[in-house]
Amino acid sequence: MHDAEETLSDSLTDASLRRCKERSAEIEAEISDNPARFRVLTGDRPTGNLHLGHYFGTLKNRVDLQARGVDTWLVIADYQVITDRDGTGPVKERVYSLLADYLACGIDPTTATIFTHSAVPSLNQLMLPFLSLVTESELHRNPTVKAELEASDRAMSGLLLTYPVHQAADILFCRANLVPVGQDQLPHLEQTRLIADRFDKRYRRKSALTRRVFPRPEALLSQASHVLGLDGTKMSKSRGNAIELAMSADETAKLIRKAKTDSDRVITFDPVARPEVSNLLTLASLAGAGDPREIAASIGDQGAGALKRVVTDALNAMLEPIRVKRAALLDDRTYLREVLTAGNERANAEGEETLALVREAMSMVY
Amino acid sequence: MHDAEETLSDSLTDASLRRCKERSAEIEAEISDNPARFRVLTGDRPTGNLHLGHYFGTLKNRVDLQARGVDTWLVIADYQVITDRDGTGPVKERVYSLLADYLACGIDPTTATIFTHSAVPSLNQLMLPFLSLVTESELHRNPTVKAELEASDRAMSGLLLTYPVHQAADILFCRANLVPVGQDQLPHLEQTRLIADRFDKRYRRKSALTRRVFPRPEALLSQASHVLGLDGTKMSKSRGNAIELAMSADETAKLIRKAKTDSDRVITFDPVARPEVSNLLTLASLAGAGDPREIAASIGDQGAGALKRVVTDALNAMLEPIRVKRAALLDDRTYLREVLTAGNERANAEGEETLALVREAMSMVY
Repeated sequence: MHDAEETLSDSLTDASLRRCKERSAEIEAEISDNPARFRVLTGDRPTGNLHLGHYFGTLKNRVDLQARGVDTWLVIADYQVITDRDGTGPVKERVYSLLADYLACGIDPTTATIFTHSAVPSLNQLMLPFLSLVTESELHRNPTVKAELEASDRAMSGLLLTYPVHQAADILFCRANLVPVGQDQLPHLEQTRLIADRFDKRYRRKSALTRRVFPRPEALLSQASHVLGLDGTKMSKSRGNAIELAMSADETAKLIRKAKTDSDRVITFDPVARPEVSNLLTLASLAGAGDPREIAASIGDQGAGALKRVVTDALNAMLEPIRVKRAALLDDRTYLREVLTAGNERANAEGEETLALVREAMSMVY
Repeated sequence: MHDAEETLSDSLTDASLRRCKERSAEIEAEISDNPARFRVLTGDRPTGNLHLGHYFGTLKNRVDLQARGVDTWLVIADYQVITDRDGTGPVKERVYSLLADYLACGIDPTTATIFTHSAVPSLNQLMLPFLSLVTESELHRNPTVKAELEASDRAMSGLLLTYPVHQAADILFCRANLVPVGQDQLPHLEQTRLIADRFDKRYRRKSALTRRVFPRPEALLSQASHVLGLDGTKMSKSRGNAIELAMSADETAKLIRKAKTDSDRVITFDPVARPEVSNLLTLASLAGAGDPREIAASIGDQGAGALKRVVTDALNAMLEPIRVKRAALLDDRTYLREVLTAGNERANAEGEETLALVREAMSMVY
């Protein structure tokens, strides 16, 4: 990432990944010392219910960061619903469902800012100056754009192509300086830093502003756990292998009963040779049942049925308070609307402030 | 243009151009009957002073349309300054200069709405849904994008590539239904209609809204005159062949003295065989000196010097009140600022209203 100001590299080198990991460890220490110095931006597309892959992969980590005192911003990326589909679908229900997921899992709306793209024009306006700072070929080089295009049988839409610029606007409109990411998302953040640097060089430094408008956001490489679906492949609603936060205890038990295992009755934790069994042990462990090797030892030769009962009990115990809170939240649409309205207002206030600086940097104050 | 809803054609057929001309004639009659039914959106990039090419080519026509009672919206396209350059340059001075040009030439700010891109976030937000409605290859097919890319030695920027979508947002954010264009700009308008139609089909028709959010804007093919620069090539500031509205009478006289003519002392109006001499006659005629053939006959064999005196006198007589008004306007920056502030406020109010309809059509009212 060291030469991000000049070029957008096609991929990560081992050396840059190592530096990134080292820097993430330093940032973790800085968060413990002075959490108020960090503003985090993350978010999700409202395309379906969150599941345990999201929970253990990112959401739990966000809740932890907020609990440690980091200023937390969450975008419900409603405009990104249409990057790869023709309609918005039941987007309203999904926005409220996502909001309920966030709050049920522990995001505190009194300090976090939760907002939707469609409600914050100043964020979206940043697309214009930012699009002037990237070339078409840089847009094409983004791995998510490449992957989404390959995964679909559609022509590249203008929105999919410019998606990395919109994501940069998400991060920069609120001048976030930290983005928790998985390794595969590092190129996105590199694109965002490139835009922040070029804006600074091309516009701000020629203005009367003495300080950068946009901090260079840093990556916080996720410590979070990667869990698989119940069939051993990537957890995804469309594969039917995902335990959603919205599911009942019975639905959860039923799904786990159908989980793929193997023919060895002796349960052992061996992610390489026994990925499905080990993934179940990981789920139980993450849900609070202890170390996966110890869980395996305690089950011994009782087989997959016993393992599944342990996993079901652990997950249902962990999920029960989330489910109760989630259901209560969804019953109180007025409260949820207030949370979203307040978040959108905060986002608009911050966005207007940023836009005023952007106009000043670009000599567009008339 | 009849199948604009389905595909974006690469070029105009003779038949579609003929239909477009016929329709323009009908629209002219409708304007005379009921001007209030039309809202026009036009505008300019603030990249330099307006010259007679702009005045006779578009500005005079806009003033006429407004005088006939058409609701007139003018965008000072400040974000489009950076489609093909790295900085915004003296954009503030240029915005005020353009505004003074508009008002000096007769645009009435009490009924016209004059605004800048950078001040209207709701306009710019439309980029997001609109980008979902076009493919990358459609963007590439736009002739202005092609021409600007070829004219520059730069890589295609994201902003240049998405320029047709931004132009659609200009027209559609205020729900203009008429755009005065030259023939070469018809593909832009076709792109805009395509976006308006697709928005209607993909989003609005699935919503509770019973009427289109965006009218299909129609082209009003310009009746305006095409004038050349004083060297017989396209009039352009960078070629030094342009008489700017901001020039003094002496500067104008001096430029015309250097204008290219030919060696035939007998002045005749023959645009094909004698383009430079005929262009000077056209300029004099447009400035009010009568029919170009009659002007030529009255000069007869007195040669280019006499012709240039006629042109100079006619243009300076026409330009004098514009110059006086322009200078007074630029001396009253407070007034100009008020005009722009009022225009931006009107544009924001209209844009917010449009955006509310867009959110409703897209089920994004939470």
